[in-house]
Amino acid sequence: MARQKAGTEFARIARIERLLSGAPAPGVEVGIGDDAAVLRARGPLVWSIDAQVEGVHFERRWLPGDAIGYRSFMAATSDLAAMGARPVAALSNLALPARFGEGELTALVEGQARAAKQARCPIIGGNLSRASELSITTSVLGTAARPLLRSTARPGDELWLLGEVGLAAAGLAALRRRTRPRGAAVERCIEAWRWPRARLDAGARLALCAHAAIDVSDGLAGDAAHIARASQVCIAIDAAKLRAALAPELGRAAALLGLDPLELALFGGEDYALLATGPRARRPRAARPIGLVERGQGVCIDDTGARRALGASFDHFAPSRRKVSGSRAASPRRAGPR
Amino acid sequence: MARQKAGTEFARIARIERLLSGAPAPGVEVGIGDDAAVLRARGPLVWSIDAQVEGVHFERRWLPGDAIGYRSFMAATSDLAAMGARPVAALSNLALPARFGEGELTALVEGQARAAKQARCPIIGGNLSRASELSITTSVLGTAARPLLRSTARPGDELWLLGEVGLAAAGLAALRRRTRPRGAAVERCIEAWRWPRARLDAGARLALCAHAAIDVSDGLAGDAAHIARASQVCIAIDAAKLRAALAPELGRAAALLGLDPLELALFGGEDYALLATGPRARRPRAARPIGLVERGQGVCIDDTGARRALGASFDHFAPSRRKVSGSRAASPRRAGPR
Repeated sequence: MARQKAGTEFARIARIERLLSGAPAPGVEVGIGDDAAVLRARGPLVWSIDAQVEGVHFERRWLPGDAIGYRSFMAATSDLAAMGARPVAALSNLALPARFGEGELTALVEGQARAAKQARCPIIGGNLSRASELSITTSVLGTAARPLLRSTARPGDELWLLGEVGLAAAGLAALRRRTRPRGAAVERCIEAWRWPRARLDAGARLALCAHAAIDVSDGLAGDAAHIARASQVCIAIDAAKLRAALAPELGRAAALLGLDPLELALFGGEDYALLATGPRARRPRAARPIGLVERGQGVCIDDTGARRALGASFDHFAPSRRKVSGSRAASPRRAGPR
Repeated sequence: MARQKAGTEFARIARIERLLSGAPAPGVEVGIGDDAAVLRARGPLVWSIDAQVEGVHFERRWLPGDAIGYRSFMAATSDLAAMGARPVAALSNLALPARFGEGELTALVEGQARAAKQARCPIIGGNLSRASELSITTSVLGTAARPLLRSTARPGDELWLLGEVGLAAAGLAALRRRTRPRGAAVERCIEAWRWPRARLDAGARLALCAHAAIDVSDGLAGDAAHIARASQVCIAIDAAKLRAALAPELGRAAALLGLDPLELALFGGEDYALLATGPRARRPRAARPIGLVERGQGVCIDDTGARRALGASFDHFAPSRRKVSGSRAASPRRAGPR
């Protein structure tokens, strides 16, 4: 960690360092323990930062301690997948409440370490500070020979989905219920919310064939709108194709929860699927075509012969949506329909 | 910013982007508005992350809105100075309370932008999220042909101070008083706490001649202890030389506050001076010698013929020091003696 402190904080940093130590990271010359990390990387650098805040992005009662670390790391790394980049390393800023226990910290860091290992993105430094609420801010650095942007979709492109959508939103909706409907489908959705994976391999493949890409963190509709706006195109989602692409568990879980699977897919984020556009002839095997890129603007959906415009995704700061969970002001971002 | 949202959050991000836009940043291929920033940089990368949390590192009533952004940026950039690195770019994660006003946000980002301009370190991306307390997490990336470490001090080196120490701690002590003593010296100290500068030029010069360096964020004693521990040496501070190196305003302000200037210098951080070690013959003009590196371990101070060991700096998590300011649990880190 970048700043070492005396006493208990020093001991905490030493423990974190042990938990994060693994195989030597290629290109990393100085890791945890100095003012900054030192590394070497080739080619264009792709660099992002993302935060997960207790009471906004999660409640501790909704997930095991290691999943807090795991999903915060994967959410950050997903930005690299969306750019078609290969991870190099990460820095982690942990803001811990005064009463955050040593066992909780160990679990959190173990979750980060597991995610970092899976993503081949070692955590090589960071910072510890106190706060009234738990938050994990992760900065990730990668490289990409040809970074995939949001702004380069072209009319005539197909719209591709890589990975599942809607499951995490259904899982979160289930976690929010006082009495949770039972069943394997609901449990699968809860696991999807708790343990997302950044689609780094899919992103790297897309970098070879797609024109534009984004990760689905806010919901398919909202993230498609980002591509549409940045590329100055219209994105038309085919409802029948999207329905056909949804996981069977999503339909079963949605029925138990009394929710619409298509709405979960369109407005629920946090599965960290990738949404990309590209020429039909170059569509990768793992990509399911769910629409088209057209001249125009905005996002619409074609359903049983009719076309309707799709509104944006949830808004962090919109007053009408501000209150979500119980005791704290929580954000509806990445929260799925309620 | 990395994640764009609809509605008010989108508008906020657009305003932030306008506030941060300046001269084109060399090497930056993609800035705010995609999943990640894309940049090119030569040589070893030096990379760090730092957070400033309301109620822990500052209270909003203690400083103007733009100083919140300014000092959070300079505190993060100081890590690059300590490594002898030249800044390339920064990412900013803003966690904003629900009631954080648009005017407050503008002031904060204007302060960041001013600091970024002074440090020649453009903010090229970031993230916005909600939180119950204001926090600013900044990740900075730089390059250094030969990064300056903490672990390479050698017995026989001189101990060098570049910049002021103690002023910021005196300023913070004054801000904490219900009735603040008046006078130009106290005001100078308050300004030192509110508007610190990362000593990037001094760091770059040190990279050519010093053996080891650190920035003084936690206090001279604690930061010297980090060098001593990492380099497995003893650092002996010469009290007379340190006293002679202190700013005259520190003595005057300390007298008005009833505090000891030497203690402010040893245990107060946040001036972001640089502490370095190196051979006497290569001491830069701006460096004041305040001690020696010896065989052994720990940090001691030689004062009027007697040597005594110096304890570590303040500890973020030590229970006995947990409560500092009024309504919230605040950290004594970087807080100066009380």
